[in-house]
Amino acid sequence: MTNMTSIASLYPPHRIALREVGLRDGLQLTRVYPSIAGKKRWITAEFDAGVRYFDAGSFLPAAHHPQFADVREIVAFLAGLPGAVASALTLNKRGAIDALDSGVPQLDCVVSATESHSQRNVRRSREEALGVVDEICQLRDQSDNKPVIAVGLSNALGCSIEGAVAPDEVYRLVDRCLETGADFISIADTVGYAGPTQVAAMIRAVVRRSGDSPVGVHLHDTRGLGLANASAAMDEGARVIDASLGGLGGCPAAPRATGNIVFEDLAFLCQTKGLDTGIDLERLIALRAIQAEEMPGETFYGALEKAGLPVGHSSAGAAGS
Amino acid sequence: MTNMTSIASLYPPHRIALREVGLRDGLQLTRVYPSIAGKKRWITAEFDAGVRYFDAGSFLPAAHHPQFADVREIVAFLAGLPGAVASALTLNKRGAIDALDSGVPQLDCVVSATESHSQRNVRRSREEALGVVDEICQLRDQSDNKPVIAVGLSNALGCSIEGAVAPDEVYRLVDRCLETGADFISIADTVGYAGPTQVAAMIRAVVRRSGDSPVGVHLHDTRGLGLANASAAMDEGARVIDASLGGLGGCPAAPRATGNIVFEDLAFLCQTKGLDTGIDLERLIALRAIQAEEMPGETFYGALEKAGLPVGHSSAGAAGS
Repeated sequence: MTNMTSIASLYPPHRIALREVGLRDGLQLTRVYPSIAGKKRWITAEFDAGVRYFDAGSFLPAAHHPQFADVREIVAFLAGLPGAVASALTLNKRGAIDALDSGVPQLDCVVSATESHSQRNVRRSREEALGVVDEICQLRDQSDNKPVIAVGLSNALGCSIEGAVAPDEVYRLVDRCLETGADFISIADTVGYAGPTQVAAMIRAVVRRSGDSPVGVHLHDTRGLGLANASAAMDEGARVIDASLGGLGGCPAAPRATGNIVFEDLAFLCQTKGLDTGIDLERLIALRAIQAEEMPGETFYGALEKAGLPVGHSSAGAAGS
Repeated sequence: MTNMTSIASLYPPHRIALREVGLRDGLQLTRVYPSIAGKKRWITAEFDAGVRYFDAGSFLPAAHHPQFADVREIVAFLAGLPGAVASALTLNKRGAIDALDSGVPQLDCVVSATESHSQRNVRRSREEALGVVDEICQLRDQSDNKPVIAVGLSNALGCSIEGAVAPDEVYRLVDRCLETGADFISIADTVGYAGPTQVAAMIRAVVRRSGDSPVGVHLHDTRGLGLANASAAMDEGARVIDASLGGLGGCPAAPRATGNIVFEDLAFLCQTKGLDTGIDLERLIALRAIQAEEMPGETFYGALEKAGLPVGHSSAGAAGS
């Protein structure tokens, strides 16, 4: 059973949603992470710049993932910001129960597109991962608040173990996830293998399969094509685009490489496309200073912060309501 | 009088030409520059990796532009590499005479798309700049070797003085340059203002105006959209794409910003598109070490050099003949 009422309210049709994933994916490999107060300061400033979608963290054991120990408090904080939409990662039943209990409006699950990566990354088969999605969807159906369930298909555009991934395998997994009750699918180029031609073809196919549900993309800039791929994905109808301020986060498979696409550069791309994201770029760039203060010694990326906005460029009227 | 025989031999139809501009545009702002021996070492290694198009330098007074004092020798060196195509910048009649005398197979001229930039950058109006193109085309027609004349339309996608640029003004200049005898036009986003939507629309229009002549693009990555723009340009039929190894060169209008798109990342983009550029990516990446040796202390950019090639990726068979 999908959840079309609430998904249309979280992701209005014909509108691009840029999701800040720096507080989740961005914190997976960093040496330092912000305090709760630092996270709230970052979220507040980014919310004031017009950002509305935030990945709040992971519901995982705090002993192994101390950077997400505050996920409940971050979810609650985001619930107090009118129009903000929090999501959180859940990888098992225990996490899902906690996540449902937190009232987070979106739960993210992950299914690896390749069998080898699924086994190595979460020590379960893809079938077992689909079973977990099914279990979480059932828990959602029995819950009071019925959050949206999104499934991220990791390594859908290339796998650091298997190399190229057959798109038909991805489409089979997309169909299975939607049948089992997931509200929408996000296609992940986890290791930055794809170019815009592959991304366009896959998003086109997944949009067709997804009916009225939005389609997301989670693109890493590992080989420099992240924004080219985001552009291609949006041209084909992807509507939920992940990114992190300053490109926070690295690549698990390539220690020197960048990870998430840079949020502010993505927001600039959207403005050049005439897409209203509700984001004030000047305020967003200014926010980089807060991020650097809260995470001293961390490496940040991005071009717009260095170059500034074009002469005559205005995001006036773009600030979110 | 255009030069269709020789242009088709330099730029075979339906093939993408990636031009290394690091030895010209790349050296405009650097503090150090390679020795003649260093330039030859760089060119030889890049030629061995399959690169065939090289901007060799500028025919400008050596007193003011010492980094290009060796341009004749570099042109002659490139003439000795079978299949290599050298180009060189000429901004006036004196430079053009020297360039014609050097035997360089391609002369580049520049016309600013905006009046303010033309006045500030070269202290002449756009009409006067068109007059120089006409003069150089006449010299070419009277010469024995009749090189190809390319006109770069700088600031065609945004101007650091005027901001947005009306595409119709650009198209008027394109038509004038082609009428006056230029062999092809290269559209430059000199300050990195554009996004892929603008680039696609402009390249589509310029390709339509250019008949059998190739269309070039010179894109700066100043705001992170360089490769997205290159992808859009190639999708619309641009065939001569400028880039520099390691993204050498900065942005005159933004001191902290990057300049040229990164050659090796562009070559990877082309491979993801299934475009045969004749380039061996492994060898191209290895070449970064030579560049760093020849230009100590200089900043280089690029993602592929940090991340490495994808697992299972092969440019076998792609190495140039």
